[in-house]
Amino acid sequence: MPQFKKAAVIGVGLIGGSFAAALKENKLAGQVAGISRRRSTVDAALKKGLIDIGSDSLSAVTGADLLVFAVPPGAIKALAPKIASLTGKDCLVTDVCSTKVEAGETLSRYFNRYVGSHPLAGSEKKGPESAYPGLFRDSVCVITGSGGRDRAIIAKLWRDIGSRVIFMSPAAHDRAIAYVSHLPHTVAFSLAGSLPAAFMKLAAGGFKDTTRIAASDSCLWADIIMSNRKNISRAMTVFENKFRTLRSAIAKGDAPALERILSRASLKRRLLERE
Amino acid sequence: MPQFKKAAVIGVGLIGGSFAAALKENKLAGQVAGISRRRSTVDAALKKGLIDIGSDSLSAVTGADLLVFAVPPGAIKALAPKIASLTGKDCLVTDVCSTKVEAGETLSRYFNRYVGSHPLAGSEKKGPESAYPGLFRDSVCVITGSGGRDRAIIAKLWRDIGSRVIFMSPAAHDRAIAYVSHLPHTVAFSLAGSLPAAFMKLAAGGFKDTTRIAASDSCLWADIIMSNRKNISRAMTVFENKFRTLRSAIAKGDAPALERILSRASLKRRLLERE
Repeated sequence: MPQFKKAAVIGVGLIGGSFAAALKENKLAGQVAGISRRRSTVDAALKKGLIDIGSDSLSAVTGADLLVFAVPPGAIKALAPKIASLTGKDCLVTDVCSTKVEAGETLSRYFNRYVGSHPLAGSEKKGPESAYPGLFRDSVCVITGSGGRDRAIIAKLWRDIGSRVIFMSPAAHDRAIAYVSHLPHTVAFSLAGSLPAAFMKLAAGGFKDTTRIAASDSCLWADIIMSNRKNISRAMTVFENKFRTLRSAIAKGDAPALERILSRASLKRRLLERE
Repeated sequence: MPQFKKAAVIGVGLIGGSFAAALKENKLAGQVAGISRRRSTVDAALKKGLIDIGSDSLSAVTGADLLVFAVPPGAIKALAPKIASLTGKDCLVTDVCSTKVEAGETLSRYFNRYVGSHPLAGSEKKGPESAYPGLFRDSVCVITGSGGRDRAIIAKLWRDIGSRVIFMSPAAHDRAIAYVSHLPHTVAFSLAGSLPAAFMKLAAGGFKDTTRIAASDSCLWADIIMSNRKNISRAMTVFENKFRTLRSAIAKGDAPALERILSRASLKRRLLERE
């Protein structure tokens, strides 16, 4: 028998749609409902078989014993009170937001059983068209919030769909993720923005790799960045100092300093492949 | 009958080894000789079948009617006079350096028939182990230098191995390539260098994509950057201004400015996929 009677996934884009499909594929819920404010998104998710039932109305959450918020941080604030009034406060709730302090504060206010999730998976693609049940296989999922039975249930859910689980506090998560995800996005957006149009025809693999995540949904990313501003600002300052040191070595023609900077960075990057 | 009697490729790493192998595969030279100062590199290139004959001695260039310099910019300066004394000044010469002004000045001094090449292919990998004859297929190759018969011969060579050829002056090439290749490398090296070691286990696809080219050979890249310092410094300043504008919008919590910056950059990046 599945662990949940009915799972309701709010937002069936790349992450929500893939999570819904993974719940279905692994038979973790008796029924998987997908909700989106756009009818076309609901229809695409249904057509792709990501969800059992779909709706553009929040009322479809009624009867759910698992709620998954897979919408941008800003949308969680608007939706949480409405959804809590439909499900009651005792439904098990998680979200997949890329920042955990703000989402955690909001969702804990409206629900008694909230556990935060942040699957470190995804890409620059978006929408149910790009979603698939295997998205989280062999990826890391950070689980935030205090321990207890609910945290163990949510952790098991992620493990069941193929993720490796790491536990962190929401504040520690947001500090770390500012460096590993949000900072690279600010760098990639700035780099893409720096390219003179006349040189676009020469952009090859290196430029494309380095700016790939700048093709991400800019509205979603504006929202994510706003929700973790302080940590991101700090990480951007660290990067800016590194960049300025490198620029100064280049401007001065200081070859030994240049080689030292590049070889340390290159070593660090190569170590990442072993993680 | 092949176009060249004997091609000598100096440096049989990723680019030189792949070019040598492409000459062989397309029967563009009667014999392809590969030269490296490291015997182990020569042996690896021979073992992989990238070259017909190999040597760690420069004397193996004797008799060549096509010379290809596939070594870092700094090494060209040291090798050009020695090789010219072995082949004479009238051998057709090209190079695959990522900067063209400096390499062109050096090689034009020692050879009468020089045409610059810069294949926009390659990766963070290095060595003959990663080389293969198809590396240049469907990639762009920039050809620099004045027109005439030799330029047409070199352009045909790149087309024969699958490249699309673009002609530019060495100065225009170095200005453009500072933005599309050298700047992304400085950004990627700085970003890799900014990551606190404690957060490495959380680095997923986004961080890895954005820093992939920071795994490149740091000695080669120090050399490349030194050979195009002025253009790179200018491009770094443009990037730094973009980054600072973004950081300021984030620090101020200016959501409309943030969305404007991200959406422009995202649009530009998505346009690149059509190039």
